[in-house]
Amino acid sequence: MTTDPDTTARLLIACPDRPGIVSAVTTFLYHHGVNITELDQHSTDPEGGRFFMRLEFQTPHLDVSRNALAQAFGDVVGRRFDMQWHISYAADRPRMAILVSKHDHALMELLWRWERGELRVDIPVVISNHPDLRAAVERFGVRFEHVPIDTATHAQAEARMLALLDEPPGVDFIVLARYMRILSPNFVARYPNRIINIHHSFLPAFVGADPYRQASERGVKIIGATAHYVTSELDQGPIIEQDTARVSHRHEVADLRHLGRDLERQVLARAVRWHVEDRIIVNGNKTIVFA
Amino acid sequence: MTTDPDTTARLLIACPDRPGIVSAVTTFLYHHGVNITELDQHSTDPEGGRFFMRLEFQTPHLDVSRNALAQAFGDVVGRRFDMQWHISYAADRPRMAILVSKHDHALMELLWRWERGELRVDIPVVISNHPDLRAAVERFGVRFEHVPIDTATHAQAEARMLALLDEPPGVDFIVLARYMRILSPNFVARYPNRIINIHHSFLPAFVGADPYRQASERGVKIIGATAHYVTSELDQGPIIEQDTARVSHRHEVADLRHLGRDLERQVLARAVRWHVEDRIIVNGNKTIVFA
Amino acid sequence: MTTDPDTTARLLIACPDRPGIVSAVTTFLYHHGVNITELDQHSTDPEGGRFFMRLEFQTPHLDVSRNALAQAFGDVVGRRFDMQWHISYAADRPRMAILVSKHDHALMELLWRWERGELRVDIPVVISNHPDLRAAVERFGVRFEHVPIDTATHAQAEARMLALLDEPPGVDFIVLARYMRILSPNFVARYPNRIINIHHSFLPAFVGADPYRQASERGVKIIGATAHYVTSELDQGPIIEQDTARVSHRHEVADLRHLGRDLERQVLARAVRWHVEDRIIVNGNKTIVFA
Amino acid sequence: MTTDPDTTARLLIACPDRPGIVSAVTTFLYHHGVNITELDQHSTDPEGGRFFMRLEFQTPHLDVSRNALAQAFGDVVGRRFDMQWHISYAADRPRMAILVSKHDHALMELLWRWERGELRVDIPVVISNHPDLRAAVERFGVRFEHVPIDTATHAQAEARMLALLDEPPGVDFIVLARYMRILSPNFVARYPNRIINIHHSFLPAFVGADPYRQASERGVKIIGATAHYVTSELDQGPIIEQDTARVSHRHEVADLRHLGRDLERQVLARAVRWHVEDRIIVNGNKTIVFA
Repeated sequence: MTTDPDTTARLLIACPDRPGIVSAVTTFLYHHGVNITELDQHSTDPEGGRFFMRLEFQTPHLDVSRNALAQAFGDVVGRRFDMQWHISYAADRPRMAILVSKHDHALMELLWRWERGELRVDIPVVISNHPDLRAAVERFGVRFEHVPIDTATHAQAEARMLALLDEPPGVDFIVLARYMRILSPNFVARYPNRIINIHHSFLPAFVGADPYRQASERGVKIIGATAHYVTSELDQGPIIEQDTARVSHRHEVADLRHLGRDLERQVLARAVRWHVEDRIIVNGNKTIVFA
Repeated sequence: MTTDPDTTARLLIACPDRPGIVSAVTTFLYHHGVNITELDQHSTDPEGGRFFMRLEFQTPHLDVSRNALAQAFGDVVGRRFDMQWHISYAADRPRMAILVSKHDHALMELLWRWERGELRVDIPVVISNHPDLRAAVERFGVRFEHVPIDTATHAQAEARMLALLDEPPGVDFIVLARYMRILSPNFVARYPNRIINIHHSFLPAFVGADPYRQASERGVKIIGATAHYVTSELDQGPIIEQDTARVSHRHEVADLRHLGRDLERQVLARAVRWHVEDRIIVNGNKTIVFA
Repeated sequence: MTTDPDTTARLLIACPDRPGIVSAVTTFLYHHGVNITELDQHSTDPEGGRFFMRLEFQTPHLDVSRNALAQAFGDVVGRRFDMQWHISYAADRPRMAILVSKHDHALMELLWRWERGELRVDIPVVISNHPDLRAAVERFGVRFEHVPIDTATHAQAEARMLALLDEPPGVDFIVLARYMRILSPNFVARYPNRIINIHHSFLPAFVGADPYRQASERGVKIIGATAHYVTSELDQGPIIEQDTARVSHRHEVADLRHLGRDLERQVLARAVRWHVEDRIIVNGNKTIVFA
Repeated sequence: MTTDPDTTARLLIACPDRPGIVSAVTTFLYHHGVNITELDQHSTDPEGGRFFMRLEFQTPHLDVSRNALAQAFGDVVGRRFDMQWHISYAADRPRMAILVSKHDHALMELLWRWERGELRVDIPVVISNHPDLRAAVERFGVRFEHVPIDTATHAQAEARMLALLDEPPGVDFIVLARYMRILSPNFVARYPNRIINIHHSFLPAFVGADPYRQASERGVKIIGATAHYVTSELDQGPIIEQDTARVSHRHEVADLRHLGRDLERQVLARAVRWHVEDRIIVNGNKTIVFA
């Protein structure tokens, strides 16, 4: 349905499953003049499982302030059901940093969608360990910072990157748009479930370096791309989105890279949009995506 | 989630959209000891549109009889929101008749899934205008009736078919599994939105006879299949499900038919399952599928 | 396999099918020191049908001039089998003009692929009936010409466009990257099978204006995009490539447009690349694509 | 194109790549009155790589006996290019044995396609380590043998199976249609590249037991199925065909199994058909599929 992004809000909930949750939440919102426009729920098990819900609602007739709404929801509903929950407002554009190395396709796809208004974020900075993409980034009016990094300077370089990301008011999440260096556990721990990586294989197949070469050597008939949240274990974080494309014996490694670029662009763009629209809930090492 | 089909019930609702519907419905069910395990909703427009909802719930702790539950829901909720609604119980297996001509692939797919328990229906009868598939049907222990039909005998043949379908306790819906005769408007009117046809093209492309030949002549690079409810206008009824497959200049008409059979089997099987599980709501000439 | 684009040549052939063609063609090339790296063939019918072949070959050891090779092939093979044929050399970059209106996604996809070297063409000019995309085009160092057009000025505007396209050395083919005006039969006749259009539906469904609205009204469960050569009949020309994406009742017209953009970009990019690499042979109103 | 399976023959070739191969092969066939209806070729590298070719041809005007044709081809062409090659005739139906455990879906799909004439093979026997599927198999008029197997009796059971397979005139290849026991290296060595297995994951992801559970635990968004030739290393043999389907957090392990069955049926059916039509060449641990 057509909704106005400037008055759209979302409520995300996770709690132990038990009867009465949907009734309590929707009745609360109804009594505060809120019009629910989307509602998704999921339970891992109605008997003793965990319950997840996402509501999207319109707030033109909201009868209280944002703070009062949150306070009341916590008091009346959240505490009763032992909920983790948060409300976000689409009008508050999240701040997204991008890390990239030399491949520009994933970066360009994001910048291009952002420029057309498809991605409702602010982009305070793009950071790269190579200088090559400066002009391409600055063409969009976006700040570009070159932070070289090698094994010897890894700690210093990460410190420099964190300093850039911490410049007030900071960033809300980070996208690795083919950033080819491994982030340290300390760096990752700073942004739990807030770093999105695009891996150029159908995970868990072909973890690690040069997955298209691995795919070619194994002789697969389908290649893939995977967007996932970054954890301290390489390529093991919660998967957000995947897609695949058919290949054959005629495709050499270079052809797989070429074809794969189009997959990576699409998969990463979908994952970032879902993150921005608060459609993803992480449950252990898996995601619930209310898309 | 794992649910027990023997205690699963579903509530389908359509009504004018306005605030408070979800709250009223879920609060009613909560107060009657019902555990909601699936909830889907859709609104054509939150301001003045039409609202649709499907709930799946478990009834082991239901505190009243089926009749009392329905009576109370109508009194307390249905009337207030001017709802069309109905409750169905998965334990009540719907009765599905199949009409078929000579092609057996769609029929076999349904019988095979039914035999394995994937389709929770009873099949009182398979009717064909050709005798060819008798053995194939009876092998499954299903009754087969041959009702020849031609232009001259059309009315009589349909009367004979209706008599078979009306044998108590009647049938709940009909599947045209490549039945190649056009049903009369009178026949169709007897089963509104309860006759499912599989059309061997990507509708609305290639309406009418021999769509694979039409597709070959147009030189399309993708073929499709469409499951839809039958209305009095040929191939114009509400679309339930579609799927497509890639073809090339190498595919002659016979190859398209061959490839298309696999599409038709999958698309029809999904559409029938959704109908059986009460996942489809018809809205004008379109469907809402809560799959 | 890895081949050097600077020494790659292609031979395309169409002729009545009869025994001995492949033998004659490959023996001729072998005797001239040519190394065949790809060979595709297709016959509409081995008995009395039409035969099509595409060969890609490497010419580092070619023993004669381009002209001499063509002369000899015509004399020795072409005439004998009554062939239509032509040889092209990948080093000769074709000249591609782009026509566009206001939607930039298809245009941007082509320019972006061209800038990265994925499309081996020269782009002498982008022509638009609106001024909006000038900056976006000129950013790539490509000439942009605004040629306004309305019903009254249609003939003059087309004359102006043809004059631009005819500036020496002219253009080899034209891409309509969401150009929303209908070209006159005279214009189209100037570039037979050399104008590629992207239509935003799964043709032949939803010919004409606003196909996403038509798709929404029909309630299809899959949308598509179609790249085709332009003929004097609107949306009826030979189809080059199509692709589809799954949608549901939740997608409004605006969502279909949004999703469809990604389809259009991919489908048009593939069609243009195949055209540039001489992979398409038009046979009547159908294409043979040796991809 | 329409070809007569009773007069169709195929020539498969593998040899070091060098100029002149296609010319020599097609000229030889032309001189023997053979009409080539399909020709596919592939080279791993035109300089020093390996060359593969498949030709399909019609033999109604063949001027010599099968033996004489083979003898002449070996003398005139095969020896000159150091070829591995063989000619097969579609009229000679290969003999296919099927091994199965308890899941019937892959088996039923093969039997159903075979009964309709889609698979041009003879099926001398279906062997199972469980008695459950006897009636389902015998319904098709196919012999069923129950060979129980457990760790203690593994060697004896395989000996019994080999004895069944060796009953004159033996079998040409074996399909593991969800046969859940691991074959010994000795057994596998008897049928090199002639045992086709369907693995219920997108290999190389989820090797080994219960891949749907593994997929569920990893939280993938796409599942797959893989048909491959069996080698002595579990799930490591050359991949013939794969396909994938989209899933979400809503799919539990049981749902993945359910969805996956449809993938397995389609993927295995395609792989078996390609094997029967001599469309697959194994090159190291990869396949070339001329489909």
